[in-house]
Amino acid sequence: MTTTRIEKDCLGEMEIPNDQYYGIQTHRMVKVSGAAGVPVIAYPEMHRALFHIKKCCALANADIGALEPEVAQAIAKAADLALQGRFDDQFPLDMWQGGGYTCVNMNVNEVLGNAANEILTGHKGQDRVHPNTHVNKAQSTNDTIPSATHLAMAPGIDKIIDGLDKLQASFAKKAEEFKDVVKVGRTCWQDALPLTLGQEFSGYASLMGRLAAKLRAARPGCFELVMGGSAVGTGLGADPGYMEALYRHLSEEYGETVRPMDNLFDGFQNSDFVVTVSGLVKEVAASLSKICKDLRLMSSGPRSGFMEIGLPALSPGSSIMPGKINPTVPEMVIQIAHQVIGNDVAITVAYDEGELDLNVWDSTFYKCIMENLRLVGEELVILRRDCVDGITANRARCQQEADRSVALSTVVAATFGYPEGVRVAHYCEQHNGTVKQAVVDMGLMTKEEAGRMIDPMLMTEPAQMARAIAQFKASKKA
Amino acid sequence: MTTTRIEKDCLGEMEIPNDQYYGIQTHRMVKVSGAAGVPVIAYPEMHRALFHIKKCCALANADIGALEPEVAQAIAKAADLALQGRFDDQFPLDMWQGGGYTCVNMNVNEVLGNAANEILTGHKGQDRVHPNTHVNKAQSTNDTIPSATHLAMAPGIDKIIDGLDKLQASFAKKAEEFKDVVKVGRTCWQDALPLTLGQEFSGYASLMGRLAAKLRAARPGCFELVMGGSAVGTGLGADPGYMEALYRHLSEEYGETVRPMDNLFDGFQNSDFVVTVSGLVKEVAASLSKICKDLRLMSSGPRSGFMEIGLPALSPGSSIMPGKINPTVPEMVIQIAHQVIGNDVAITVAYDEGELDLNVWDSTFYKCIMENLRLVGEELVILRRDCVDGITANRARCQQEADRSVALSTVVAATFGYPEGVRVAHYCEQHNGTVKQAVVDMGLMTKEEAGRMIDPMLMTEPAQMARAIAQFKASKKA
Amino acid sequence: MTTTRIEKDCLGEMEIPNDQYYGIQTHRMVKVSGAAGVPVIAYPEMHRALFHIKKCCALANADIGALEPEVAQAIAKAADLALQGRFDDQFPLDMWQGGGYTCVNMNVNEVLGNAANEILTGHKGQDRVHPNTHVNKAQSTNDTIPSATHLAMAPGIDKIIDGLDKLQASFAKKAEEFKDVVKVGRTCWQDALPLTLGQEFSGYASLMGRLAAKLRAARPGCFELVMGGSAVGTGLGADPGYMEALYRHLSEEYGETVRPMDNLFDGFQNSDFVVTVSGLVKEVAASLSKICKDLRLMSSGPRSGFMEIGLPALSPGSSIMPGKINPTVPEMVIQIAHQVIGNDVAITVAYDEGELDLNVWDSTFYKCIMENLRLVGEELVILRRDCVDGITANRARCQQEADRSVALSTVVAATFGYPEGVRVAHYCEQHNGTVKQAVVDMGLMTKEEAGRMIDPMLMTEPAQMARAIAQFKASKKA
Amino acid sequence: MTTTRIEKDCLGEMEIPNDQYYGIQTHRMVKVSGAAGVPVIAYPEMHRALFHIKKCCALANADIGALEPEVAQAIAKAADLALQGRFDDQFPLDMWQGGGYTCVNMNVNEVLGNAANEILTGHKGQDRVHPNTHVNKAQSTNDTIPSATHLAMAPGIDKIIDGLDKLQASFAKKAEEFKDVVKVGRTCWQDALPLTLGQEFSGYASLMGRLAAKLRAARPGCFELVMGGSAVGTGLGADPGYMEALYRHLSEEYGETVRPMDNLFDGFQNSDFVVTVSGLVKEVAASLSKICKDLRLMSSGPRSGFMEIGLPALSPGSSIMPGKINPTVPEMVIQIAHQVIGNDVAITVAYDEGELDLNVWDSTFYKCIMENLRLVGEELVILRRDCVDGITANRARCQQEADRSVALSTVVAATFGYPEGVRVAHYCEQHNGTVKQAVVDMGLMTKEEAGRMIDPMLMTEPAQMARAIAQFKASKKA
Repeated sequence: MTTTRIEKDCLGEMEIPNDQYYGIQTHRMVKVSGAAGVPVIAYPEMHRALFHIKKCCALANADIGALEPEVAQAIAKAADLALQGRFDDQFPLDMWQGGGYTCVNMNVNEVLGNAANEILTGHKGQDRVHPNTHVNKAQSTNDTIPSATHLAMAPGIDKIIDGLDKLQASFAKKAEEFKDVVKVGRTCWQDALPLTLGQEFSGYASLMGRLAAKLRAARPGCFELVMGGSAVGTGLGADPGYMEALYRHLSEEYGETVRPMDNLFDGFQNSDFVVTVSGLVKEVAASLSKICKDLRLMSSGPRSGFMEIGLPALSPGSSIMPGKINPTVPEMVIQIAHQVIGNDVAITVAYDEGELDLNVWDSTFYKCIMENLRLVGEELVILRRDCVDGITANRARCQQEADRSVALSTVVAATFGYPEGVRVAHYCEQHNGTVKQAVVDMGLMTKEEAGRMIDPMLMTEPAQMARAIAQFKASKKA
Repeated sequence: MTTTRIEKDCLGEMEIPNDQYYGIQTHRMVKVSGAAGVPVIAYPEMHRALFHIKKCCALANADIGALEPEVAQAIAKAADLALQGRFDDQFPLDMWQGGGYTCVNMNVNEVLGNAANEILTGHKGQDRVHPNTHVNKAQSTNDTIPSATHLAMAPGIDKIIDGLDKLQASFAKKAEEFKDVVKVGRTCWQDALPLTLGQEFSGYASLMGRLAAKLRAARPGCFELVMGGSAVGTGLGADPGYMEALYRHLSEEYGETVRPMDNLFDGFQNSDFVVTVSGLVKEVAASLSKICKDLRLMSSGPRSGFMEIGLPALSPGSSIMPGKINPTVPEMVIQIAHQVIGNDVAITVAYDEGELDLNVWDSTFYKCIMENLRLVGEELVILRRDCVDGITANRARCQQEADRSVALSTVVAATFGYPEGVRVAHYCEQHNGTVKQAVVDMGLMTKEEAGRMIDPMLMTEPAQMARAIAQFKASKKA
Repeated sequence: MTTTRIEKDCLGEMEIPNDQYYGIQTHRMVKVSGAAGVPVIAYPEMHRALFHIKKCCALANADIGALEPEVAQAIAKAADLALQGRFDDQFPLDMWQGGGYTCVNMNVNEVLGNAANEILTGHKGQDRVHPNTHVNKAQSTNDTIPSATHLAMAPGIDKIIDGLDKLQASFAKKAEEFKDVVKVGRTCWQDALPLTLGQEFSGYASLMGRLAAKLRAARPGCFELVMGGSAVGTGLGADPGYMEALYRHLSEEYGETVRPMDNLFDGFQNSDFVVTVSGLVKEVAASLSKICKDLRLMSSGPRSGFMEIGLPALSPGSSIMPGKINPTVPEMVIQIAHQVIGNDVAITVAYDEGELDLNVWDSTFYKCIMENLRLVGEELVILRRDCVDGITANRARCQQEADRSVALSTVVAATFGYPEGVRVAHYCEQHNGTVKQAVVDMGLMTKEEAGRMIDPMLMTEPAQMARAIAQFKASKKA
Repeated sequence: MTTTRIEKDCLGEMEIPNDQYYGIQTHRMVKVSGAAGVPVIAYPEMHRALFHIKKCCALANADIGALEPEVAQAIAKAADLALQGRFDDQFPLDMWQGGGYTCVNMNVNEVLGNAANEILTGHKGQDRVHPNTHVNKAQSTNDTIPSATHLAMAPGIDKIIDGLDKLQASFAKKAEEFKDVVKVGRTCWQDALPLTLGQEFSGYASLMGRLAAKLRAARPGCFELVMGGSAVGTGLGADPGYMEALYRHLSEEYGETVRPMDNLFDGFQNSDFVVTVSGLVKEVAASLSKICKDLRLMSSGPRSGFMEIGLPALSPGSSIMPGKINPTVPEMVIQIAHQVIGNDVAITVAYDEGELDLNVWDSTFYKCIMENLRLVGEELVILRRDCVDGITANRARCQQEADRSVALSTVVAATFGYPEGVRVAHYCEQHNGTVKQAVVDMGLMTKEEAGRMIDPMLMTEPAQMARAIAQFKASKKA
């Protein structure tokens, strides 16, 4: 039989089953929420960050004499237990909550408070450690939740950076592997000048590097917090020395330079850092999506598409058509971009609708950025492991395409002027022939010259091509 | 000890633990997905719809002699068991999947196939009932998944319609309750002509009704399917009579008129119905958000805001400020609109990126529309129950505002012309007085006339006001 | 030398050049706006609608004795002149304006007022006809602007409906023209079952019809107005009989059934009709974009792409590569969809941010919906005329693709079961051969049977295919 | 009588009126576009950038011996004339164009070519200077247009940075002016702890500074180009030494360090810099929108709103309600954010839909980013000049609000613990009294202590407040 205890808040009191670490305020909000059917702790980083914050606040308050040392130690110990996952089932609140996640902060205050009370007294309750007076000491939802949101983004950003680094390496490896695979370039999905498959992949690698650099540049913002501002940015409720002590503890706890934002009123009013991070994560998702569209198109076939590359066959691609294989991983990536773009819009609207002394749209920010960070972090692993690393080139097909491309007439234009290039292109179309054959037929080059000059691979190396054109022109003048 | 069985597909074979109803193709895709960390069946409607479809296909194929009756019956029985939730743990696939949810269709084929095999032979395996040959008979992922998506939306739409109807009733009740509460109207957040709080709430009720009507008009689209088109819309693989038999069974199974789309190629190419539904659900979410912004603003205070209405106090609104109560439910609704708007963008992009003979972005469509349907369906319940039904009017405050509004000078403009109205408005501002006092001071009306004419409540009933102005003018001419 | 006149408003007075029909209030706002550098009247429909409204209001007020007949007639005459474009240079206000387009309404009131004054007195000025007292009689910006917005959308909607009808006809004609062009279907950009190019185009035609039907169903909302509600929906300022007279005149003026919304408070609070129309226009834009992506892909080449169709060559496609031709029209359509989707988001956010007794975000609604209506209306003409009507089929290429497709093995699966289909597919891949050859080599069919059964065109007609399979099976049993 | 000339391209020839500098290729595209009804040159920065590029390319080609010096000089001179606006009416192409703006590049090539031809020969035509062979020498649309887009953004970014700097200064000045105006803070639109109006405005100033810093960090990307990559990134068509010479000329021409991107294939494939800039511009627009929502709310009234500040009265706010003044400038800013957010979505989708060797969605990128840059650059000027600089504080109202706030009980909580704070808050609500009175009534403080401790202004300075609490506690212990 579960015993109960009585807990009070400003609206009254409630009988709480004693096996629950959470208390009256959590109970109140559980009853009036539940739209998602998914708890905030489904993305556990917010709670982890709050445990760290509560621990550091307690220790800082003890340092400056604002909290009894044994109470502070009990709170810190409770927080450490929480960080080990001990209370993960004690956070029942749904993802979508109004009130700027006040209930989420209070849920943590209640769980840590009851745990600390238990440590000190052997029982739960608010008699020795009070969730508001002690655990929340010198804090407010309004500084803890935005700060926890910043901190909560760091692991996801790190995972994406790591994923980009590794994918860059994979693309670079493929670029090397495919450096001698010449193929037709395509702009507007029309045959254009030749390039190598390796050059295309070198572009992918380069993009991964640039995106990682953008995220690295933004990352320190995760550790710029509004802690110390309490309810509206003034910091009311904190004792002298609190800020210095708190940020010292936070920096130690995280092993990072944690520091307060320059103007806490600004920090309270605006959550632009979430918007910035979301924008970058969206860039990553859309970049991967673009590349995956390329991979799908280049692997389209097996007999009636572009057929330039092959992707690993992961599963049957049809329930009815035997032998069909779909580019499932690229397609997953393309779709995730839809979601990430959508969530970025949600975050933008939440930012745009910020108001007065605090942006209270924490549910939107937290849910949407965490979903995006997770999706992009995971897809980077899957895309690399189950797709990119196994890509093969269809060399024969690529070479054949390149040789037959009418765009090779650009060399003629570069050598004899654009109008002459046009004449050659027309000749090719009329005779359904190659540029190499056309220049010979039209008397512009000898067969030998054509073989040297109308070479797709040569065209992928502009310096050598320019030299060849110069030599050719010189030989003609001579 | 778990025994195993061997299953084959076009890529090879695999040893499958015998306690699993799902098989080789599901296993393959589980290994290369997992970005969300949430399975498709987190929204179970897709699977429910597929169970219904598979059952009806089996029965239809039996009717026309394309499937042995006992195999069909076994599949139907397996589907009924699935509908009871018997196999809910047998669908491990992650929400985000490429290949047009081929794997989701195959997962269902495998589970129902093994279950049917078990029914007929006592063991799982593909020996008596094959997932592709029998369970998927005459079908393709390409007609089953889009059809299941249509069917899966119906329960969510119905819940929203029900929620709108009930909320309309609640608003209408409040409109009646507040019909004699006169207050200042506001446009551009500036004091405007008076109206009653009841009139404002009648607008909310009216909007709920219009939104419900829009959804009711769209709802039949849930039961227009592309079943019968098989892989590309031609219907290859179906025996004569299949379409008629299938839609007859589907209509019976659902108790609705289920019918094929007019042009199956169109249906395969385009998922515009999802876009249309998403647009309407977005309208609902944004409409509720707008109303909730009103409720927050009108209840702002308790001492320095608009203070026109009171919302139920649900939980403490601050971890630091005693006595503060937040409008948590309206804030939840406002944030959910952010998400719904974002998901609508995701769905739009997925539609825009449709291609060739099939729009394959099923993960985007399904996840985003189901999340939106759920959030809006649930918030309608919470908003009504925990907020709207408990709204109270602050009558004294409303009346006081209305009486002091300078916009009452509009009556002067309507009676004496706009320039005279401007003179009165200026007088009020200079003397910080009421319009009622000004018209007397300025000699435009007697005190008695002013009392009759400068009456906010009278201004909310235009016919009576017009009559009063006419009488006043007549009395002056007389 | 320009003479001047003095005009007054509630903020003071101003000297106005006498060659300007607009007056003091317009001048004030011109000074504090200009962000776009584009005037509202760049889309002239809003002003046209206001001219109609002002004319009908004047006539209605005269009918009920609320306005002197000669003043009403002068206003009506001024409005008619305005409708002929006489004053088109008298509306200098920038597209982006706060205050719910009060300045736009006042600009019209001033121009018509001065024109009417001129008609009656020979000079401009507010002495005989006052912009607020007479031209704006019984009206407010708050009912005229939203009403004008509704009316302003009708021509654009009509143009899109007409464009869809004509494009549907063009696609249908192509469907007929291409009905015997068999090709490989594609899902996930992988070779799938064959269908005819005509079947694909029949899907496009069907979609055009469905979109037109959706717009036709929505169109009557353009003629449901909030006129009569004046400032906040109560209708203060109107004399008895005004509503009936006004809507009678509006219906005559437009030749449509113009009627008031059911609940004017609702109408003032919410601009959901704009959201609905925007959603549908977005569906059209994204649908066209999808089709244009298909056209680009099917015409990709000329030597290394899908090369199934040819698009009209409109202009050189490269400044450097001779002979390159780009699918410029489809690409224009694809990009317009980006803009339309973006503007739809803007409209959604403006709706979501509606507030209290009036949604004042008229600039967003008007600019974004009118830009979208124009872009989509125009692109429908261009796409049809300069692209679709000139599409040609590459019949040989299509047939060749279809014949070589491994997906033809689906017929084997339908005849012998899925596993046998898989065996044939594997055989084709290993031998790089056709399904037709494989079934003979593997002893499943005679050469004659294979010739009859493995026929892509037959597979596009499921009834005949089913008959063929049934006969084949029967022949084997026999 | 206009004489004509004959021009040729790869599709044929055309008779061109001799008063037109543009030629055959421009004519072709004018006929098949026109959706917007607005030319590209409505935002002239793209053309300006192309003139600079063409000039520098000609000079660079001359430097390395790839172009005759007199031809290069003529092109450079034509470009200089173009930069003076001489040919502004010679660019008729509509904003929305497919083909990656090939026609825009060719339009410039034709105009500069004909102008240069005229300079050298006295007549237009392709006989001495050819648009492709000479003006476009070593270039492609594919490197010039994306490069011009980068360069075209710089002036708009600079204008926004300047606007942010000045607005920061204005906000900072107001922060100083309002530093002694204490008021009630608000979170969730509910009365919260006091702060000063100056503190709020210091937050606005701080935000402006941070946004300007973000833009400054991004700005150098405007001068990282893909020039030299020609058609697909390989640089085919350029002679040795071209890159060095070109970037030297570009750096001189712009007075900036202009440099090539690290990997030109990457640069061709991806337009992420536009996405990044768009994201930042969106942050600015949404930030201004948030602040403007605050300004509207704080200035709501004049008698029934928050009434904390006054905005400059710019124009009458109603056509019917005398004396009403609307916050028109803030409302303009709020709406512009809708558009900017929408355009950012358009840009994101265009990026997401990039493909293969070139992102060809130049119309979307250019139109949407330029519209956003212009709107935000202009609104920053208007908002500062016509609104922010004229804001006044309603000091009496602010003080009164602050004194009456129940949230002052937080001091009680900070001094006596949270539960005691709750008791005081309840007492205030029950007696409709102030916290100052309550603490005296309840015997917690003497009247003198309450006067010193329950002081809103003191609460805005946390260090002093903490000292006061410490002294109070010490005095009690003593």
